Amino acid sequence: METKTLKSWPESAAKLVAVAAGREAADLVIRGGKWVNVQTREILDNHDIAIAEGRFAYVGPDASHCVGEGTEIIEAQGRYMIPGLCDGHMHIESGMLTPAEFARAVIPHGTTTMFTDPHEIANVLGLRGVRLMHDEALLQPVNIFTQMPSCAPSAPGLETTGYEITPEDVAEAMTWPGIVGLGEMMNFPGVVNGDAKMLAEIAATQRAGKTVGGHYASPDLGPAFHAYAAGGPADDHEGTCEADAIARVRQGMRAMMRLGSAWYDVESQITAITEKGLDPRNFILCTDDCHSGTLVNDGHMNRVVRHAIACGCDPLIALQMATVNTATHFGLEREIGSISPGRRADVILTSDLETLPIEHVIARGVTVAREGEITVDCPHLDWPEDARATVRLGKTLAPADFEIKAPEGANRVKAKVIGMVENQAPTKALTASLAVTDGLVEGDPEQDVCQIALVERHRGTGGVTNAFVSGFGYEGPMAMASTVAHDSHHMIVVGTSREDMARAANRLGEVGGGITIFKDGEEIALVELPVAGLMSDRPATEVAAKAQKMVEAMAACGCRLNNAYMQHSLLALVVIPELRISDLGLVDVRTFELTPLFEQEG
Amino acid sequence: METKTLKSWPESAAKLVAVAAGREAADLVIRGGKWVNVQTREILDNHDIAIAEGRFAYVGPDASHCVGEGTEIIEAQGRYMIPGLCDGHMHIESGMLTPAEFARAVIPHGTTTMFTDPHEIANVLGLRGVRLMHDEALLQPVNIFTQMPSCAPSAPGLETTGYEITPEDVAEAMTWPGIVGLGEMMNFPGVVNGDAKMLAEIAATQRAGKTVGGHYASPDLGPAFHAYAAGGPADDHEGTCEADAIARVRQGMRAMMRLGSAWYDVESQITAITEKGLDPRNFILCTDDCHSGTLVNDGHMNRVVRHAIACGCDPLIALQMATVNTATHFGLEREIGSISPGRRADVILTSDLETLPIEHVIARGVTVAREGEITVDCPHLDWPEDARATVRLGKTLAPADFEIKAPEGANRVKAKVIGMVENQAPTKALTASLAVTDGLVEGDPEQDVCQIALVERHRGTGGVTNAFVSGFGYEGPMAMASTVAHDSHHMIVVGTSREDMARAANRLGEVGGGITIFKDGEEIALVELPVAGLMSDRPATEVAAKAQKMVEAMAACGCRLNNAYMQHSLLALVVIPELRISDLGLVDVRTFELTPLFEQEG
Repeated sequence: METKTLKSWPESAAKLVAVAAGREAADLVIRGGKWVNVQTREILDNHDIAIAEGRFAYVGPDASHCVGEGTEIIEAQGRYMIPGLCDGHMHIESGMLTPAEFARAVIPHGTTTMFTDPHEIANVLGLRGVRLMHDEALLQPVNIFTQMPSCAPSAPGLETTGYEITPEDVAEAMTWPGIVGLGEMMNFPGVVNGDAKMLAEIAATQRAGKTVGGHYASPDLGPAFHAYAAGGPADDHEGTCEADAIARVRQGMRAMMRLGSAWYDVESQITAITEKGLDPRNFILCTDDCHSGTLVNDGHMNRVVRHAIACGCDPLIALQMATVNTATHFGLEREIGSISPGRRADVILTSDLETLPIEHVIARGVTVAREGEITVDCPHLDWPEDARATVRLGKTLAPADFEIKAPEGANRVKAKVIGMVENQAPTKALTASLAVTDGLVEGDPEQDVCQIALVERHRGTGGVTNAFVSGFGYEGPMAMASTVAHDSHHMIVVGTSREDMARAANRLGEVGGGITIFKDGEEIALVELPVAGLMSDRPATEVAAKAQKMVEAMAACGCRLNNAYMQHSLLALVVIPELRISDLGLVDVRTFELTPLFEQEG
Repeated sequence: METKTLKSWPESAAKLVAVAAGREAADLVIRGGKWVNVQTREILDNHDIAIAEGRFAYVGPDASHCVGEGTEIIEAQGRYMIPGLCDGHMHIESGMLTPAEFARAVIPHGTTTMFTDPHEIANVLGLRGVRLMHDEALLQPVNIFTQMPSCAPSAPGLETTGYEITPEDVAEAMTWPGIVGLGEMMNFPGVVNGDAKMLAEIAATQRAGKTVGGHYASPDLGPAFHAYAAGGPADDHEGTCEADAIARVRQGMRAMMRLGSAWYDVESQITAITEKGLDPRNFILCTDDCHSGTLVNDGHMNRVVRHAIACGCDPLIALQMATVNTATHFGLEREIGSISPGRRADVILTSDLETLPIEHVIARGVTVAREGEITVDCPHLDWPEDARATVRLGKTLAPADFEIKAPEGANRVKAKVIGMVENQAPTKALTASLAVTDGLVEGDPEQDVCQIALVERHRGTGGVTNAFVSGFGYEGPMAMASTVAHDSHHMIVVGTSREDMARAANRLGEVGGGITIFKDGEEIALVELPVAGLMSDRPATEVAAKAQKMVEAMAACGCRLNNAYMQHSLLALVVIPELRISDLGLVDVRTFELTPLFEQEG
């Protein structure tokens, strides 16, 4: 990976050798720490580290021969020196933050390397969006490696994304300096069935010598699972139980165990190591998705490592799973993931290996955070106007755009309703008998049924798909709209009032995307996400505060669901059963077919 | 690596997926074995393997859905199924066999992958010789990956090789399909001192994303060692004690532990794992150098694994050190080193994990050996004439070419003598008082001093360097000549008779190189090594038999030294102290300077 601020090992080799040999002075020496050696799985007390040109030059019992006049000295004072933490798989967009602001939020938590799949922006802006994320990533003082998204659209034929990723796009991306592999291959039925396009994307990645990310979201460990493994994905973070993790590693994949804002898959899988005693080298920790609130309040990879240790994992093994294992997986073991000569000088000082306080973070030889406070700049890309003007409605929406006409002459209709299930991603395909007023079908608060609309926002077609949803518990006139609408990221509007639905949709058109809630005709919460309608370039604390207000506003409208915003944003995810909405209509994800809104036409 | 006989994983992916899913039939199914899983470090009883297009398609509890009409079935009958063995570092030339014949010798021992550094031929034929070795390697039914030699000459300024390797040569070789990295960087003082040429070779390798082989042959683990590690070498096989192995792994290198014909470095280092309990992932087994006799009588990588187990190593860890650890080191973990989908179908059936009988060897899905007998062809390259006519003497040598003239008027001289030490590579710098007859200095059987000559054979200069050697115990008129003469591989002639020395040298010129012994004017042993004067393209059994006769012939001439031939062939190795011979003269390797033959001139 080329970066703006760091020379490659070969470019720095002469300097590193000279420093290690004592002929030249190091830029920085850390003295007297406990070296956590993730290669041997040892702790070596009273060791020194010498750093030059952003890389480790010497790690040994005494670096005094590397100290010169200009050498900065940090006294480790007996603290542990651990490698900077690596997140093996994650989506920056999940934090609703740009790469720069995401980096700023996680650096004080000790994350110095991320492997990110900008899948969400790929659905909005395609290869160009991936490139912008990639370019901002390379500006950061920490390592953000990009995985080229593999599946946009996630469900071809059932939705229209802003852009479709092709094998040619994948091949092109493989030539970029910050691309480390292919993002999670979610179309696992495609791979199992030998889909030529999916196999071509995998082939383009393998031919470039890079790592193919996996995503096998099924409990079936029979032939379909084996066929997926034979297709080429090299890792998987979708396992949820011990058998899942073991099966993946046995098949020569790496099991990524995640603790995200809403994922809790470490405790259930780590027993493969803590109880079954398997070789831990092929297990990796990751977050997958973290909301800004988690980053602000709970942490990032430090939270995952602490959790793994709390689950009974040996701290050194837990650290290996967040450092050298990850580096090895991506072919970067000689670049990151350990405190060894030549590697990027990413190191954390901590007083305790179990509670893991992140006291001092050094990345590429520079102090980037101290006691939870960031000490460097995280440069922003000058995001171009077309990446900030992605909410193209094509017109000002009116309440009439959200009208659902009843079949001619009907007084009541039996309508299909998307039924949410608390704390679960799958929905239920329900039906409800709804009244018709003036030829229009109305929601019914008594049955907790309100309207949902998918508003096309990529091409400005003015298209609106209308349907019904149940489970939010909304009371009184209101509407909530979001341009975070997995995976195609049009706009999802849910409401009890067509007037407020139109207001909410237009408001997001006005601010360039985000989330808004209207109640009784007034906006009561707004999270602006102007970059691709997905991300803010404001600090995480600010975004988290607004997101918190948004959650409170949902409650003020009567919503009692846990994680209600996440549920909202997943209602168009046409790869997870049972009933979803897309720009093409209502989708029955049990049969992968578009389905009419009314049970009986008339 | 491209091969003639195997498609890449992406090329075979559709087929592999179809077989794993049960839609198409496997070429071969192995049933009911104990799957030795080197990723989890487990043995899984009663498992099946399905193979298609030379790669593993399915490994699981039941492959019956992969069996079709044309599927060959092998019943494993409860035997262990282990990955084919990998030799992490070795020199094919040490077997005095071409790659094809070397492969033929080791396949029945279960070696299916070798990482070879054709350092010897590089000294004779340069990049062209490396390419020929590389090309024959790619013809084989097993995997022979080539490391581009880094150090020819080994000692610039002290010898003249047939060819000098440059950083540009290294960069070119990195583009060849079978090149996996840089061969052992022997010039460790150069790296430590920041030698620009050595660092440029390392840089060319790192920029190509390939692995830099190391060779740090010093017991000094201080700053010089750290500086070497900072220079970029990723492994080292020169460690001889536990502290060596641990130091290398702590520095982020991989410790290669070797058991060769004359190397015994496993037992002394493996305690890092068996006693110190370090994470074994960064330890690798290798042979470095095996003579044909070892291959015929003792084995190859199976011998090393058995030995590691006999040293107390857990058999599964020993196997990891000869399979997946090696593969991971070279960035090939998704290509070789485990029995997992997509990988080359290299698998061994064995009844016992400790004694490791190699009962059935499958490489790329084809049975290549059964019960010690090879069952496939190992194709020969059509070695071009210039690779077979490398002994260029420039003239017919006469006894006079081996005359050592005394200083004018001297009756006796005090001469420097290369003193051999049994079972050790270093020599002693001795002196002897020698008689002068008719103006010529003569050897002295009483002091066990005879003549040694370095005969130039690359450019046909007719140059002969004459000196004295002690320790062989030769009696009566005799001479022995060898074109295996590390590292520059001119011709070393040792003898008590100048007539026989001339006969021996001319004889090797006639047969294109090898080893010959003359006694009383008659040839009593000959090992023809016509390829580059280093290798035979005859079977290992035949070469081993001739080599055995050669050893017996040395004894018949009075030599009682252990490993006497190896001593002979190392007498021009001008990187190991104390006294050596080269085409430029007598070399004092304590000071790295040419030195006069006589202690006092006159």
